[in-house]
Amino acid sequence: MPKISTRAEEMPASPIRKLVPLAEDAQKRGNKVYFLNIGQPDIPTPSEYYDAIRKANLEVLAYSHSAGNESLRKKIAEYYTRLGLSVNTDEVLVTTGASEALLFIFMTCLNPGDEIIVPQPFYANYNSFALTAGVKVVPITTHIENDFDLPEIESFEALITPNTKAILICNPGNPTGILYSRKSLEKLRDIVIKHDLYLIADEVYREFVYDGHKHHSVFSLSGLEDRAIVVDSISKRFSACGARIGCVITHNKTVMGAILKYAQARLSPPTMGQIGAEAVYDLPQTFYDKIIAEYSERRIFMLGELKKIEGVLCPEVNGAFYAMVKLPVDDAEKFCRWMLESFSYKGATVMMAPANGFYADPSLGIDEVRIAYVLKKEALAAAIECLSEGLKAYPGKKDTHTQQKAVSL
Amino acid sequence: MPKISTRAEEMPASPIRKLVPLAEDAQKRGNKVYFLNIGQPDIPTPSEYYDAIRKANLEVLAYSHSAGNESLRKKIAEYYTRLGLSVNTDEVLVTTGASEALLFIFMTCLNPGDEIIVPQPFYANYNSFALTAGVKVVPITTHIENDFDLPEIESFEALITPNTKAILICNPGNPTGILYSRKSLEKLRDIVIKHDLYLIADEVYREFVYDGHKHHSVFSLSGLEDRAIVVDSISKRFSACGARIGCVITHNKTVMGAILKYAQARLSPPTMGQIGAEAVYDLPQTFYDKIIAEYSERRIFMLGELKKIEGVLCPEVNGAFYAMVKLPVDDAEKFCRWMLESFSYKGATVMMAPANGFYADPSLGIDEVRIAYVLKKEALAAAIECLSEGLKAYPGKKDTHTQQKAVSL
Repeated sequence: MPKISTRAEEMPASPIRKLVPLAEDAQKRGNKVYFLNIGQPDIPTPSEYYDAIRKANLEVLAYSHSAGNESLRKKIAEYYTRLGLSVNTDEVLVTTGASEALLFIFMTCLNPGDEIIVPQPFYANYNSFALTAGVKVVPITTHIENDFDLPEIESFEALITPNTKAILICNPGNPTGILYSRKSLEKLRDIVIKHDLYLIADEVYREFVYDGHKHHSVFSLSGLEDRAIVVDSISKRFSACGARIGCVITHNKTVMGAILKYAQARLSPPTMGQIGAEAVYDLPQTFYDKIIAEYSERRIFMLGELKKIEGVLCPEVNGAFYAMVKLPVDDAEKFCRWMLESFSYKGATVMMAPANGFYADPSLGIDEVRIAYVLKKEALAAAIECLSEGLKAYPGKKDTHTQQKAVSL
Repeated sequence: MPKISTRAEEMPASPIRKLVPLAEDAQKRGNKVYFLNIGQPDIPTPSEYYDAIRKANLEVLAYSHSAGNESLRKKIAEYYTRLGLSVNTDEVLVTTGASEALLFIFMTCLNPGDEIIVPQPFYANYNSFALTAGVKVVPITTHIENDFDLPEIESFEALITPNTKAILICNPGNPTGILYSRKSLEKLRDIVIKHDLYLIADEVYREFVYDGHKHHSVFSLSGLEDRAIVVDSISKRFSACGARIGCVITHNKTVMGAILKYAQARLSPPTMGQIGAEAVYDLPQTFYDKIIAEYSERRIFMLGELKKIEGVLCPEVNGAFYAMVKLPVDDAEKFCRWMLESFSYKGATVMMAPANGFYADPSLGIDEVRIAYVLKKEALAAAIECLSEGLKAYPGKKDTHTQQKAVSL
């Protein structure tokens, strides 16, 4: 029997999804499982999405243009224009989710062996796409005790080698929830210009900012015309994860031309998803306001409840719908497995994403989990109560006084 | 400005799609364009597909399981069982089109630098996926004069090196239309067992066989349990190219487990497409019979008409809906461009795919095109008439007597 490839062996299982079989088993045993592991919102997908698909009346469900339907690309460009960011239709290429956008960008901007600097913890699949593209992720560590803020310029510069080709950020951040300040972004701008790098920004959570904070796109920074590449998606914004519609946006025509060749190879993004997406990009500001208010309420509630649990550390973050949470346990992955395999409270348990999978350095994030506040407040309340009880019962719990001392070091 | 990657520069533009801008210009000048360049059938997508989507009534358009909905995987397994091929639900993983299936297989089965033997001409995007995966395509040439039949075992063995990991076939063949005999497949079976290789079979055109011929899947061969990997798709079978629903099928659990990690990284295939696909896999045999009768009629008509044109060579092939056609021209790509840029007949012109893009060796296929008979008979008649007139008017036409001599060599 022939072997599988070394890279396939090295490919990590998704920290977000690898415990799914345990959750399925827990459900089979009759437990309710609160899924806090995955950024799958419970917000209804807008009826406009479904209406557009129902009305589409296509005779043949054909391939679209490889760059996506021009009508959708125009809508996306208009959406950016409304945000005050100048984007033309030709500067948008529709992808099969932000996942594909990232892979195309990695393939186009970096050669095998090239390096990309990414603040860690980072969205675990960045690593998977980097492995697929043969690109080396060079992590720059941010700390939960420091609310995951960006390190100083010097720390970035210490990591730059002749092989460094890009910096990748997620803003607002998955898994951290961090929202980068304009000053932080300007810091990155200066680095990429000085060292001739691309600045790739995953901005799929753009609208998800709270407490009066404002999101700054890399497109709002001057001097980055040929360097800034934005990854976007309808998944979170319009609660349409299953549509698999994302996009790449860049003013750099050479990059866009090369990405189109990758796009042509896979023929086209899903046709129906594009039709639905076109409809939701027309939604008024009130649509966003309502969703943000909902997430804002959940966030305040969840952070408040988590802080009540002894030994739990939860940073103050202002974006996306995730929080990295430090738990008083020996090993968060063991704890997450134990919650699914051996624990239930009021007939339910909680699934979380062990955070070590979000760090490139395997020694980090051992006692952290990522929690997505994608459930309704009542479900969140029950989930956090269940987590709190689980922490009391877990055999590998840490003495919280020791834990808090460690944190304050 | 940072450079793009060398691999992106080397990535070829799709021979099927690279002339699209010229076709768009021809349309803007008021010409009708007959698209024979792309395997986009004009057969209506079954109403069952659209009905299932309309009735889906989802509140949240969520991610599916990364391997695809279990209910769809079960339907696909049942479809294989009806074909007499034993496939379990767990042996099917749903992908975003056959394109993604191929990329996952390349990533999983081959390391960068490994070699895969592919009979040429081959579906051009195999090369794109190989470039993405850093895999080296080693072509084994088949000849239009020999109806693109497989070479002898010795020719394969001469190409096998310690880096060879797999043989990839498309059966029925795109772009050649060849249908491999059981004997040819057994030949391949013997080679892959002897040399410990994978046998990857793209069988998306499985049902498209004519003149009473029968398709043999690699799954029907004994001894290949851990070596055979099948790529499949609903695109052609159900005329649903825009759904972007394909799949990988293998009995090899290690390969399937590794592919699942790649699948998890991109989260899930399109949810609505899966719902539609589930409905069409239930269609009765009469659905297939009707479509095959339609293509069969087109094929007989098209081959007949092409053979009437002096200097045109069109092999006898029995599968898919493509034909590679040798034209009496200096350079088929120049001719295809000229047809779009400078020629029209009765207000129309024809778009074809220059065949050199389907060969790894750039000196081959220079005077060949791939024609897809995906249009209704009347449109095909008009297209071939237009092609015939174009050949008469083309400045780079060859003396057909010289041409025919060359062919008979």
